[in-house]
Amino acid sequence: MEKKFSFAIVGGDMRQINLAELLARDGHDVFLYAMEKSNAPDGVIQKNNISSLSNKRDCIILPLPATIDDKTLNAPFSMHKTSIDDLFSAFSTGQTVIAGKLKNSLFEKAGRSGIRLYDYLDREDFTVLNSIPTAEGAIECAMSETKTVLSGRNCLVIGFGHIGKLLCAKLRGLGANVYASARKSGDLAWISAYGYKPLHTAQIIDSIAEFDVIFNTVPAPLIRREELLFVKQNAFICDLASKPGGVDFDAARELEISAVHALSLPGKVAPLFAAESMRDTIYNILSEWGN
Amino acid sequence: MEKKFSFAIVGGDMRQINLAELLARDGHDVFLYAMEKSNAPDGVIQKNNISSLSNKRDCIILPLPATIDDKTLNAPFSMHKTSIDDLFSAFSTGQTVIAGKLKNSLFEKAGRSGIRLYDYLDREDFTVLNSIPTAEGAIECAMSETKTVLSGRNCLVIGFGHIGKLLCAKLRGLGANVYASARKSGDLAWISAYGYKPLHTAQIIDSIAEFDVIFNTVPAPLIRREELLFVKQNAFICDLASKPGGVDFDAARELEISAVHALSLPGKVAPLFAAESMRDTIYNILSEWGN
Amino acid sequence: MEKKFSFAIVGGDMRQINLAELLARDGHDVFLYAMEKSNAPDGVIQKNNISSLSNKRDCIILPLPATIDDKTLNAPFSMHKTSIDDLFSAFSTGQTVIAGKLKNSLFEKAGRSGIRLYDYLDREDFTVLNSIPTAEGAIECAMSETKTVLSGRNCLVIGFGHIGKLLCAKLRGLGANVYASARKSGDLAWISAYGYKPLHTAQIIDSIAEFDVIFNTVPAPLIRREELLFVKQNAFICDLASKPGGVDFDAARELEISAVHALSLPGKVAPLFAAESMRDTIYNILSEWGN
Amino acid sequence: MEKKFSFAIVGGDMRQINLAELLARDGHDVFLYAMEKSNAPDGVIQKNNISSLSNKRDCIILPLPATIDDKTLNAPFSMHKTSIDDLFSAFSTGQTVIAGKLKNSLFEKAGRSGIRLYDYLDREDFTVLNSIPTAEGAIECAMSETKTVLSGRNCLVIGFGHIGKLLCAKLRGLGANVYASARKSGDLAWISAYGYKPLHTAQIIDSIAEFDVIFNTVPAPLIRREELLFVKQNAFICDLASKPGGVDFDAARELEISAVHALSLPGKVAPLFAAESMRDTIYNILSEWGN
Repeated sequence: MEKKFSFAIVGGDMRQINLAELLARDGHDVFLYAMEKSNAPDGVIQKNNISSLSNKRDCIILPLPATIDDKTLNAPFSMHKTSIDDLFSAFSTGQTVIAGKLKNSLFEKAGRSGIRLYDYLDREDFTVLNSIPTAEGAIECAMSETKTVLSGRNCLVIGFGHIGKLLCAKLRGLGANVYASARKSGDLAWISAYGYKPLHTAQIIDSIAEFDVIFNTVPAPLIRREELLFVKQNAFICDLASKPGGVDFDAARELEISAVHALSLPGKVAPLFAAESMRDTIYNILSEWGN
Repeated sequence: MEKKFSFAIVGGDMRQINLAELLARDGHDVFLYAMEKSNAPDGVIQKNNISSLSNKRDCIILPLPATIDDKTLNAPFSMHKTSIDDLFSAFSTGQTVIAGKLKNSLFEKAGRSGIRLYDYLDREDFTVLNSIPTAEGAIECAMSETKTVLSGRNCLVIGFGHIGKLLCAKLRGLGANVYASARKSGDLAWISAYGYKPLHTAQIIDSIAEFDVIFNTVPAPLIRREELLFVKQNAFICDLASKPGGVDFDAARELEISAVHALSLPGKVAPLFAAESMRDTIYNILSEWGN
Repeated sequence: MEKKFSFAIVGGDMRQINLAELLARDGHDVFLYAMEKSNAPDGVIQKNNISSLSNKRDCIILPLPATIDDKTLNAPFSMHKTSIDDLFSAFSTGQTVIAGKLKNSLFEKAGRSGIRLYDYLDREDFTVLNSIPTAEGAIECAMSETKTVLSGRNCLVIGFGHIGKLLCAKLRGLGANVYASARKSGDLAWISAYGYKPLHTAQIIDSIAEFDVIFNTVPAPLIRREELLFVKQNAFICDLASKPGGVDFDAARELEISAVHALSLPGKVAPLFAAESMRDTIYNILSEWGN
Repeated sequence: MEKKFSFAIVGGDMRQINLAELLARDGHDVFLYAMEKSNAPDGVIQKNNISSLSNKRDCIILPLPATIDDKTLNAPFSMHKTSIDDLFSAFSTGQTVIAGKLKNSLFEKAGRSGIRLYDYLDREDFTVLNSIPTAEGAIECAMSETKTVLSGRNCLVIGFGHIGKLLCAKLRGLGANVYASARKSGDLAWISAYGYKPLHTAQIIDSIAEFDVIFNTVPAPLIRREELLFVKQNAFICDLASKPGGVDFDAARELEISAVHALSLPGKVAPLFAAESMRDTIYNILSEWGN
């Protein structure tokens, strides 16, 4: 990215601080808002109130997710609560804003105010990059929770979306026997084509007793008590699906089956990489929009 | 597939004969039409004229492509020309027909006659399976046309669609340094995520001098004289894109660059696998349609 | 293993308890000695003193290592100290004994007493199996100690022995750029042949600044202060070489380079797999010796 | 290789011509002997008789194999027969000579004459590099001889030496299910550790019916009539073992099993790479000998 931009980073955790540092290191002007309790990295300017946000920046960056309670900005480093509505009202017409996990109502609001609003999670480039630390984090989790190795073990990955695809590739790369489940005939063909063993998601129960490690990526109740009854002793289940996940954790506890709900892995296991993924996606957006 | 069906296989080459044999071996009733010059496999019944096609079968199977000249059935084993229009007129209402590379006008005709018409190439499952022999065939071609090994060489795959994805995976599996090019930021993210080196298709010319083997999968003029001028001595170019392909073959000849247009690889390098892919796709269609 | 044997397991930690359980589950007679403080697994008989060891068993199994202080048995679950010399004196002539990390003097003693003594670490089968959890443990360690992913990063593996070979394969399987160093031209050829980038161990210093993660497997001072001075900020060093290892940890601390000496990984990260490896090796020894 | 040497290349086929070209391109002085019928590459000097070989060169390079009939030099581009004995008599004391497949008697002769004689095949670096085109050539052979793909097929590799190891890695990289057989427990452990399925070579017959493609690397009669009787219809056997190989080809023909004896693959499928491997090995020898 040769052109230099001005960025306002508004709210967020360490990942946003890392992002600020990366952007500043590339020579851009970077301003931090709603992060008074953090130490601004070298070359980044700490701003004390959000009123100056009405000065147009090339790009305003909100966190992922932008809000947790649907009302206020996700800003753990701020001493104040900032209402999302107030924030959006402060932006100038034509302002480019990038944020994560936005509600439809915000897009409507942005549309009416002439704000160019982008959600990371609508971007294929970001969701792919974000799947890398999720897949690695799932492997790290399985390695640390089991008493054996992944090499040579039967591993099942439920769902062949972004995370499923990368997780299968990495598990095979470690020497595991990889099974993957899906529902669509096209996905099942891909599973075969990559050399994994295909399973129909509706028939998991028939072969669930074979697996040493089970990774779920589908947000649907797929590993219920009835499936858990057949799970191998010493098996481990890693649920990667967003809340409420796909595993009946109460039943698992009762049946003494080891199961973990591993959420928000990118920020936890690889905050630096997560910040780099944000930066790359922001650059892609800006170059596509011809900024 | 537990249920038994009756199939009419109408026209086609050895791949369709292999398909007839596979279906018969699974216990289905199989009839051959417009293939009088072939030897019917065990358990397959040779029919001498197509008039009896008006008897409804569970499924009528035309070849891939169903027609080459847009008028008559692709039937190299027949002594007669059969018009596609006459053929479709013979089918009963409600008849399921599966064929390949169909024109839109045939779908219209089928719609008006109440025929349930399916094109293999509209099916993700088939196109994925069909990419496997294409990718292997491309590798076989590169191995036999070059004086060196693929292991350790710089290979470029242009385009990250079905064939591109599988070809990259197999080339890396053989120990090559794999570069892949695409235009969309999402595809470029996938290329990185799988561990290949990403390149923007519009910038191929900048690094084309680095590559020992170049595989093109995009049907657009990407390797023109101006790119060929930079290609390494002893490099090899394998063009997999359908006619007219993406390589200026005249310029390549003139510049003494080795280049091959490798077309219709599945039927050539793996006819048996190609027939199995058709069979699996037909079973998928029938089970989805609740036949 | 169809034939049934009688085993005496003498000393050791949880790995030996797991081993006892595995052997008992296969239908063998298993007796525990010098493990009074442990709970004997189902079907395993707890013995209170070692005097009955003079009753010949098909195989007596000592831990790995058999002794830590060169004098007494490694027996953390025992209330008593047992001298290695006394132990060996108790064994009958012709007794088969398997143990780990034995001193030459014990082999001499065994030779004079007609004891058939085997060291796990002399067995290629065991050292290979034991390298699997070491390689996985090293990866788990790197994943948890770094703030980024392994995918796409430059990883160096110093030494291309058992652990080096498997570690390289697994790192590449995770999508890392793998460099490996060795000294012998044959090993360097293997590194190239497998598709990793070869480096001469004597020249590590020239390219050490390139690496995000460095794994050392060679027990020699290779990562000294002078090499550490060139190591990238944020890089991570995982030393797998037995004590004193190959890294100057004092210098690393001073230079604020993150470095870990990861020892005895099989027992720590995969005690169950470690017990299975012992069992398989014991079966191999017994079948080769025609017991 | 910064230092410049003088090389005499004596006899051999296109591979030696390629080698001459590579050495000349690196700036060395290169002279061709016993190759009068070939065109010397740029910068290489054609010599008409071997008498001048008594002028010491830094290194004299004979072909691989140096002789086919055990008496005369392997020199298809020469108009004359040159006796190996005469040739060796012509060399000066202290002369470095590199050649391939030498008989013990020549080493004796060399020892007595003070000639420093090296055989490529004694070098681990060369045999590893030479295994790469052998493994790729075996795959190319299987791809072209079968009517199906390697992806998803059951492939057996008999023997886990240099070629076996690389062939297994490449077959898995193409998506095959890889089985490998060996006799030593250490090799079987390696097979497991790399994630292939291990088989004892003595028990091949028990599972030979499972395999779609069988590669033999062991020069011993392992695929006899009794094994062939169980081989799957449509299976393909590729024998890579040096003559007489490991397959009963007469029985295979009789039983209509497709089998090929694929010999001398490096020179056939990758002559340029084969020349590069020779060059690299020669440089390794010269640098180790402190020339």
